[in-house]
Amino acid sequence: MDMHSLTRDLKVKNKSKIVMLVGDGLGGLPLAPGGKTELETALTPNLDALATRGVQGLSIPVKPGIAPGSGPGHLGLFGYDPLKYQIGRGALEATGIGFAMQPGDVAIRCNFCTLDSAGNISDRRAGRISSEESAPLAISLRQISIPGIEIFVEPVKEHRFVVVFRGAGLGGRVRDTDPQATGVPPLDPVAEDEVSQKTADVAKEFLRQAREILKSEKKANFHTMRGFAARPDLPSYDDVYGLRAAAIAVYPMYKGLASLVGMDVIGAASTLTEQMDVLKNAWNDYDFFFIHFKYTDSTGEDGNFEEKVRRTEELDACIPAITALKPEVLIVTGDHSTPAYLKSHSWHPVPTLLVSDCCRPDPHTAFGETTAITGGLGQFEAQYLMLLALSNAGRMGKYGA
Amino acid sequence: MDMHSLTRDLKVKNKSKIVMLVGDGLGGLPLAPGGKTELETALTPNLDALATRGVQGLSIPVKPGIAPGSGPGHLGLFGYDPLKYQIGRGALEATGIGFAMQPGDVAIRCNFCTLDSAGNISDRRAGRISSEESAPLAISLRQISIPGIEIFVEPVKEHRFVVVFRGAGLGGRVRDTDPQATGVPPLDPVAEDEVSQKTADVAKEFLRQAREILKSEKKANFHTMRGFAARPDLPSYDDVYGLRAAAIAVYPMYKGLASLVGMDVIGAASTLTEQMDVLKNAWNDYDFFFIHFKYTDSTGEDGNFEEKVRRTEELDACIPAITALKPEVLIVTGDHSTPAYLKSHSWHPVPTLLVSDCCRPDPHTAFGETTAITGGLGQFEAQYLMLLALSNAGRMGKYGA
Repeated sequence: MDMHSLTRDLKVKNKSKIVMLVGDGLGGLPLAPGGKTELETALTPNLDALATRGVQGLSIPVKPGIAPGSGPGHLGLFGYDPLKYQIGRGALEATGIGFAMQPGDVAIRCNFCTLDSAGNISDRRAGRISSEESAPLAISLRQISIPGIEIFVEPVKEHRFVVVFRGAGLGGRVRDTDPQATGVPPLDPVAEDEVSQKTADVAKEFLRQAREILKSEKKANFHTMRGFAARPDLPSYDDVYGLRAAAIAVYPMYKGLASLVGMDVIGAASTLTEQMDVLKNAWNDYDFFFIHFKYTDSTGEDGNFEEKVRRTEELDACIPAITALKPEVLIVTGDHSTPAYLKSHSWHPVPTLLVSDCCRPDPHTAFGETTAITGGLGQFEAQYLMLLALSNAGRMGKYGA
Repeated sequence: MDMHSLTRDLKVKNKSKIVMLVGDGLGGLPLAPGGKTELETALTPNLDALATRGVQGLSIPVKPGIAPGSGPGHLGLFGYDPLKYQIGRGALEATGIGFAMQPGDVAIRCNFCTLDSAGNISDRRAGRISSEESAPLAISLRQISIPGIEIFVEPVKEHRFVVVFRGAGLGGRVRDTDPQATGVPPLDPVAEDEVSQKTADVAKEFLRQAREILKSEKKANFHTMRGFAARPDLPSYDDVYGLRAAAIAVYPMYKGLASLVGMDVIGAASTLTEQMDVLKNAWNDYDFFFIHFKYTDSTGEDGNFEEKVRRTEELDACIPAITALKPEVLIVTGDHSTPAYLKSHSWHPVPTLLVSDCCRPDPHTAFGETTAITGGLGQFEAQYLMLLALSNAGRMGKYGA
């Protein structure tokens, strides 16, 4: 059974405030057996004080053993089953650069490539052309015109750019044109279902015109199209939870993910301190606040244990600004673990802390991976965290009589 | 996969006895941070002795964050997925007053109401008419006659009564006739699917005759119909577990819920001590005993922490009468938490204790919410408790070769 058909029925409106503070990639690993994780090494007096009042546990982003990307990681935290709701590559790429997809849009990741005189691909990434060289080329493709279709072309980085088609009757299931090999020609876009035939036709015409525009370029004389994806059809926070929700993030990807579930993206903060100002100023206008902190993830990806520790301490330092506002429910969690030891997202469950006046505290007085093992929340799938948030906020009625 | 298709295949019969002692709303909360819950405050030497021999954990009634009513709470404990099997409002009301619904019956919650001279509802609850006034009116509706349909009318309390239709081809999906407003006429019963058309027709005729019978009443000159519900189609304990099961309860609701899964409701006990006598007398006749104790819930609902503590001690005191019978498996649990702090059912997982000679004990020597966090059963969904009961009783074979 879909949890959202339940929350739609049981949701209750009140004046409570819920704050979900997400330290991206929060969970970690010790560098050596017997050592402490990044979170356990960091001095976190504020998180420890919350742990004393609250209850902690381990959030499993998808299922045990699955390391998620940012998309499924956040969908889980937002209460959307990450195995049911999938964000296609193209849609995630568009979202990641801040492009606001509308229902019915189809987004495609494109790579500039090099064709030889026979029309075969000699370099699938156009010699990893620099962003400075490729951006004007991407922008030159904006002259492409197809009747009845609005076309957006957005540079990304190096050989990558994004194309979005907007128009009636565009399905999102079209095969990649990248043959994943050199010495062969690019493939034609082929529809994988009937409703995507028009999209395949539009893509074919786009490629025809692009080949003409790019033909005299030396490196990037063509491009491939990959990860065709319609905008995912996600019910909104207002619909499923009855929450007026705001996202306070710095990076476009997380603003985009939040907007896909109907959160308002507010403020223009570029630091955590500025995010706290945005929170304070918007406090009366929303019921739910998602605050995203990127640097616990990026330092983990860099394999920089010490810097992840420092960034975790920075996260800790923002807590008093939140508790001063007296939210009814405060959650601190991560979308996945990013241990510096692995330099990548991992499958390890994520230390998660919940504080409310009715949360049944556990005996812990510190927050970390080891204490979370014996925390009162146990180990649970991230997709249930929003149910806990709502119940602790008095925003969900009883199921059944 | 439905667990019952598994238990049907794997069930093994033997002479073991399983006792499930349910303290309704057993789980609780401390009144202040750092305090103890009701169960932890209570002096429970017998439960603590069981905890020493046995294994404990936390039962999640439905899913994390969901507070269940009595229906889904007990279905979970009985091993029926409470999100799959739902008991409609009418069926639960009929069950709650001890009416034994048969397969194919449709039950309806009815409210006496007051119509003005124009036929519009002026009071949706007939001035909250007293039970003394309303019961004879409900009984007067028993004269209603509809060919081919057996009709039952049962007074409940104040303005409420229950109607059950019995006959061939009656679906349970009919819309409420209560317009949820005054100054407008009651609605007609409208079928929501084809198989419920006959039910809607029968209801319409019932309402026509009722209007005639009640027309000269001052307050209760008509009634509405709500929560139409067929008897839920629940496979029996004998079918899915191979268990001859008995329910020893005081309140009609729990007798009714047990009878819906095919338990025999035995005895006429009105106290826990009398329930123990019923248990002893029926010991040789059944394999499984469900014993229900109401007062840990009702005292929680009243917000009376001290009284819930006392009632928990009363529950503890019945344990020796059970252990004297030497059941192979003894389980002590609750259908949900009812913290006095919240004065309501809650979502918090329920301390649950299992004792058998093969249960792999954990190190705990006391029973409570905090110890249960680190108990050997971990946190688990209530619907799996019966699997543990069967296995600990040697009543379930190996899955797969």
